[in-house]
Amino acid sequence: MQKDTDQVLQSVSLCKYNNLVHASSFAHRSELRKAKRIVVKLGSAVVTRGDECGLALGRLASIVEQVAMLQNQGREMMIVTSGAVAFGKQRLRHEILLSQSVRQALHSGNSQHKEMSVPVLDARACAAAGQSGLMALYEAMFTQYSICTAQVLVTNLDFQNDKKRQNLNSTLQELLCMNIVPIINTNDAVVAPPEPNSDLQGVNVISIKDNDSLAARLAVEMKADLLIALSDVEGLYSSPPGTDDAKLIDIFYLGDQQSITYGTKSRVGIGGMEAKVKAALWALEGGTSVIIANGTNPKVTGQVITDIVEGKKVGTFFSELKPAGPSVEEQTIMARNSGRILASLKPAQRSEIVFHLAELLTERKDEILAANKLDMENAVRAGHLPSAMLKRLSLSSSKLNSLAKGMHQIAVAAQDQVGRVVRRTRVAQSLELEQVTVPIGVLLVIFEARPDCLPQVSSLAIASGNALLLKGGKEAANTNRVLHQLTQESLSLQGVREAVQMVNTHEEVEDLCRLDKMIDLIIPRGSSQLVQDIQHAANGIPVLGHSEGICHIYVDSDASVDKVIKIVRDSKCDYPAACNAMETLLIHRDILRTPMFDRIIEMLRSERVKIHSGPRLASFMTFCPSVARSLRREYGDLECCLEVVDSVLEAVEHIHKFGSSHTDVIITENKETAEQFLQQLDSACVFWNTSSRFADGYRFGLGAEVGISTAHIHARGPVGLEGLLTTKWILRGDGHTVADFSESGSMEYLHENLPV
Amino acid sequence: MQKDTDQVLQSVSLCKYNNLVHASSFAHRSELRKAKRIVVKLGSAVVTRGDECGLALGRLASIVEQVAMLQNQGREMMIVTSGAVAFGKQRLRHEILLSQSVRQALHSGNSQHKEMSVPVLDARACAAAGQSGLMALYEAMFTQYSICTAQVLVTNLDFQNDKKRQNLNSTLQELLCMNIVPIINTNDAVVAPPEPNSDLQGVNVISIKDNDSLAARLAVEMKADLLIALSDVEGLYSSPPGTDDAKLIDIFYLGDQQSITYGTKSRVGIGGMEAKVKAALWALEGGTSVIIANGTNPKVTGQVITDIVEGKKVGTFFSELKPAGPSVEEQTIMARNSGRILASLKPAQRSEIVFHLAELLTERKDEILAANKLDMENAVRAGHLPSAMLKRLSLSSSKLNSLAKGMHQIAVAAQDQVGRVVRRTRVAQSLELEQVTVPIGVLLVIFEARPDCLPQVSSLAIASGNALLLKGGKEAANTNRVLHQLTQESLSLQGVREAVQMVNTHEEVEDLCRLDKMIDLIIPRGSSQLVQDIQHAANGIPVLGHSEGICHIYVDSDASVDKVIKIVRDSKCDYPAACNAMETLLIHRDILRTPMFDRIIEMLRSERVKIHSGPRLASFMTFCPSVARSLRREYGDLECCLEVVDSVLEAVEHIHKFGSSHTDVIITENKETAEQFLQQLDSACVFWNTSSRFADGYRFGLGAEVGISTAHIHARGPVGLEGLLTTKWILRGDGHTVADFSESGSMEYLHENLPV
Repeated sequence: MQKDTDQVLQSVSLCKYNNLVHASSFAHRSELRKAKRIVVKLGSAVVTRGDECGLALGRLASIVEQVAMLQNQGREMMIVTSGAVAFGKQRLRHEILLSQSVRQALHSGNSQHKEMSVPVLDARACAAAGQSGLMALYEAMFTQYSICTAQVLVTNLDFQNDKKRQNLNSTLQELLCMNIVPIINTNDAVVAPPEPNSDLQGVNVISIKDNDSLAARLAVEMKADLLIALSDVEGLYSSPPGTDDAKLIDIFYLGDQQSITYGTKSRVGIGGMEAKVKAALWALEGGTSVIIANGTNPKVTGQVITDIVEGKKVGTFFSELKPAGPSVEEQTIMARNSGRILASLKPAQRSEIVFHLAELLTERKDEILAANKLDMENAVRAGHLPSAMLKRLSLSSSKLNSLAKGMHQIAVAAQDQVGRVVRRTRVAQSLELEQVTVPIGVLLVIFEARPDCLPQVSSLAIASGNALLLKGGKEAANTNRVLHQLTQESLSLQGVREAVQMVNTHEEVEDLCRLDKMIDLIIPRGSSQLVQDIQHAANGIPVLGHSEGICHIYVDSDASVDKVIKIVRDSKCDYPAACNAMETLLIHRDILRTPMFDRIIEMLRSERVKIHSGPRLASFMTFCPSVARSLRREYGDLECCLEVVDSVLEAVEHIHKFGSSHTDVIITENKETAEQFLQQLDSACVFWNTSSRFADGYRFGLGAEVGISTAHIHARGPVGLEGLLTTKWILRGDGHTVADFSESGSMEYLHENLPV
Repeated sequence: MQKDTDQVLQSVSLCKYNNLVHASSFAHRSELRKAKRIVVKLGSAVVTRGDECGLALGRLASIVEQVAMLQNQGREMMIVTSGAVAFGKQRLRHEILLSQSVRQALHSGNSQHKEMSVPVLDARACAAAGQSGLMALYEAMFTQYSICTAQVLVTNLDFQNDKKRQNLNSTLQELLCMNIVPIINTNDAVVAPPEPNSDLQGVNVISIKDNDSLAARLAVEMKADLLIALSDVEGLYSSPPGTDDAKLIDIFYLGDQQSITYGTKSRVGIGGMEAKVKAALWALEGGTSVIIANGTNPKVTGQVITDIVEGKKVGTFFSELKPAGPSVEEQTIMARNSGRILASLKPAQRSEIVFHLAELLTERKDEILAANKLDMENAVRAGHLPSAMLKRLSLSSSKLNSLAKGMHQIAVAAQDQVGRVVRRTRVAQSLELEQVTVPIGVLLVIFEARPDCLPQVSSLAIASGNALLLKGGKEAANTNRVLHQLTQESLSLQGVREAVQMVNTHEEVEDLCRLDKMIDLIIPRGSSQLVQDIQHAANGIPVLGHSEGICHIYVDSDASVDKVIKIVRDSKCDYPAACNAMETLLIHRDILRTPMFDRIIEMLRSERVKIHSGPRLASFMTFCPSVARSLRREYGDLECCLEVVDSVLEAVEHIHKFGSSHTDVIITENKETAEQFLQQLDSACVFWNTSSRFADGYRFGLGAEVGISTAHIHARGPVGLEGLLTTKWILRGDGHTVADFSESGSMEYLHENLPV
């Protein structure tokens, strides 16, 4: 209720103030959130349905929805719209056809098949006929958000004369102060007749080119922070879209003009790309940031305006100042190129880089720890990091030492991994086939607070010959910077300094995922939320990881009680937040009401583990803990679910139904039962009489892990070096053709396996 | 122009006729395309923005867009709408607040902070105040599509009295005949005051429950073919959404009532799920098909109505007759369960199934060829299959024989693939780790015209212990049916008949991709368009395949001319439509203007290969063929691009930039140059002095292939049995915990590699 009141109060009071600031022009997309005064220019391709000449209602409604939302956040929104001609054309055409058809129906019976033609409509007449309807529609739509609109029609002349410009300025200022959204259009009815344009069938188009420059002029005149120019092109391309090298330019800097060639005109209306860019640069020089984006793609339109204001990578952003570092696209290209050299090195050379990096960790530990101290202090000062997070953020001498030790292992293990021949076949006489291991390509690793991830992941990538993009958490920025410097120092040894790149922390994950042709594998290391977000955003790039770790322990009727107590305690309590911790304890029905059952419960109670009861257990007990809301839940804390099953088969079924194929354990002394469980259960890791916590690359003896995968392809369970490799096929012949092997050919396939 | 004329003519003429038919009720979603008369019911949650009480303009506009499109296809659309109350509430509240605030501003200076309250508005007053605005908005929107609307307000009484019902019926009939879209609402202003409802703050909700039954009654009264009821729930769930077992019901059959428990009410308005289902069943019994779906999800809304009419799986479809076979979900579950048994068989048992199937191919070849003859005849009769397609569709004795031979190879090769130990580690005393190969799970293979795919793919899946869903092309339906029967017959030998399922041809690929938790890998076999479509629709399920095969041959300066002629001819002309055919021929600059160059051109000309020139070649030649539009093009025909490079390095760069990482060849007599190419080029297959056409599972000696992968993970190049396997980790211990290995623990990691 308060909100409505406020809105009305604002509209009757004189002026409102808020935290949004007016800046000259923004240097980075992320600053666009601060834009207070925003001009949204809607090209005719956005407002109309192209050739069909009616308005594109869905798009228009969505635009109104977004503009209203931003206005209600306290921003001052202005709309420069097209669409009056299209609206009027639709209206006049309908009227004319109707009158024609009635006339025809009245006068002639035999001329029914004669095609009726619509006269060429004058665009200015169309504009006049459509303006009122267009405004009525805007008003009806904005009313749904308690926002008033005002119609402002202008011509070029209104800007040429200082007096007139001041009038316009103060009118708009007044409207903005009253929380009204001005809707601005050229006063087409009174301008000179335009040149004919063949793009729009049957209608001579009014000089809508003016809407680009009109919006720019208006934005500068009104000291707007941001001009969003929506049309039917994605933005500015480096060369005409559709050509081999055409790339959408993310940020266009003043002075970049010579680097582009212009694309084609938009389908409806005048105002090709060149005119748009000219207007944009003009506005930029006047202190207004500009974004040119596509407002016609239905999938994007839903959010195009708010996405832009939130700093997402939509369209082309025009910026005054070129920032110091390379863009993330440039970084990816550098990484890939440098990575190809890294891949062509000898294994020993790659290992040398890793050895050197391991040495630097101890040699330069003061530098690392000083940076880490800074991060820790910042985190404590900010005060919003939980203590577990702080613990992960902090480094120590001993942590660095064991890190270095693990890296030594990786360097040693890597010696015979890349370029290993896994299969050799003599296909035919003088035709030999080899399958060899090769690096995957470019990896993107996203990790949260833990800075020790950086040298670990870098070592795995370097040892396996992969290029690497790293995106670390903001909390560890200082530590990560030093660690990355040391990594590049080590890479320089072999002239491949750029193979590991550190991505700026303000790059959004979803924007990185747009580099889909340039990144071969994404590895998220962090919370299951992070992994889920990335899997969602991945956009076709494979993601190696798991979003859930719902691990089970099944206690068989033949279990040894000591092992049960020991294993269950370790699995649940050693590190409850880990993905390989136990979440559900399944017990054989025969154990109910035995001393073993009591000892399990006693142990869990003494460890302060909160027990949730499964529905079957609840049905057996007179008094029992609260029933679990779901059997498919990762508690990640000192909590677990306890459920009863009748047999090992039922345990397997339960796990197939509610588990996440991560790690599941059977405790039994019966070898046959154990093997049944191990063979039939379809999980990445299946254990017998051991803690679930062993599901880990280091404990498995893989040296280190890039993550644990629950996917069914490529790599499964803890993933070490091997998961970062793929293979390629090399075939060496002597002029062989498949025709040689046809019925009329002279050769025959041997397919003889050769030793590798 | 003609279209507009027609529309207007239709609206002034008396009645229109078209091909759409009126059926009693449809048995399958695919028949919904035939629906002529459609009632769209918009619940209040769809039309309004929930608590905010204004209209959801974007959704409304999109709905109008879809309804208009369907109407303009010649269908007769009717809308039963909510929203008048919300519209009126927004309007009245605004008025009241405005008058209050003005009053307050006038009268008191010190009461500014006193909160103003909006009186509880009577829903009937809101409805009256909102009805006109709502209709005006509908009218403005439909006008954009040259469609007239009419307002029809009804009450329950209008249905109870025969006379009244006839009046209503004939009014609506008249409107439909005039191409007008009737917009129907309850006449809330004149009904009895409703019971209070706490869901909608401050407003007593009118008995909107009536809109569900109103729409059902109206649909039956008007003999509508389809009623689409949109609200804020996805459809009918088997149990309340959010619970572990809740599953959206795709098709609900008359008589299924007892199998569901009802979910919660929708947030705004009366009319919970139970009432919706009751109304739906009532309409169904009256001969109208019904779909209940979500109209509020912005991502889906864009197409929800047209998607439904096109037969896509949206919401819950109410059908009278349960079809004979199982649903695709049921098939997937059957396949997975049977597949788990298949996976637990001994390798020899799986091989036996494949051997048996191979035998059946020759034993029962008459049956197979008869079915194939039927398909061929149908195809020829339909006449739209190109001859290449017909060739692929046809089977022969010799084709079946060589198929059987390949399957024998698979059966033999499979013996030692599944359950193979690939790594064994002694982690610690009595703690042993094994990594063993296991099947991936459930495969979905989609293939086009070639029926010989079926036994081949089935054999690979069976031999590797995977469950399989097959979706073949309509053209081969008869052949596929027989081949699938034989496959199931062979599977029955080991009691796993259901492990290979054949999906009905009318299932859409995108609907299959929705089974994302149930399918582990999709393998498309067919045109690159098919693969691209599937990669696009895959919805997170990994896809094994390649969409493009842009293969290069690089002719080095040290090449032998005879080998060049032989290899280039084979690579381009042996089978130009294959993905491993050459698309671009790169030649070293030194070869230009040599006899070798002339011989290459001569050969290509004599083979009628159309040559497109690369830009560099064009710059070197006085006269040259037309310049290629793109260097990244798969011609798939007797066409190729010819370009010049300066060195092997430039060739590698060119291929990295324009290739598709499929198969690329170097022709040279210089071993060093060849090795440079083979090592540095990052493609799945890199060949030296052989035709690109060798990139094939059979030619590689893999027995058969499920496809060629250009992905960078899992499997690359031709994929045979191994690509259908993954691994799992088995750890066997004796009560080990990770705590035993901590600093205070008693154990130490050994990580000793054991022989496998």
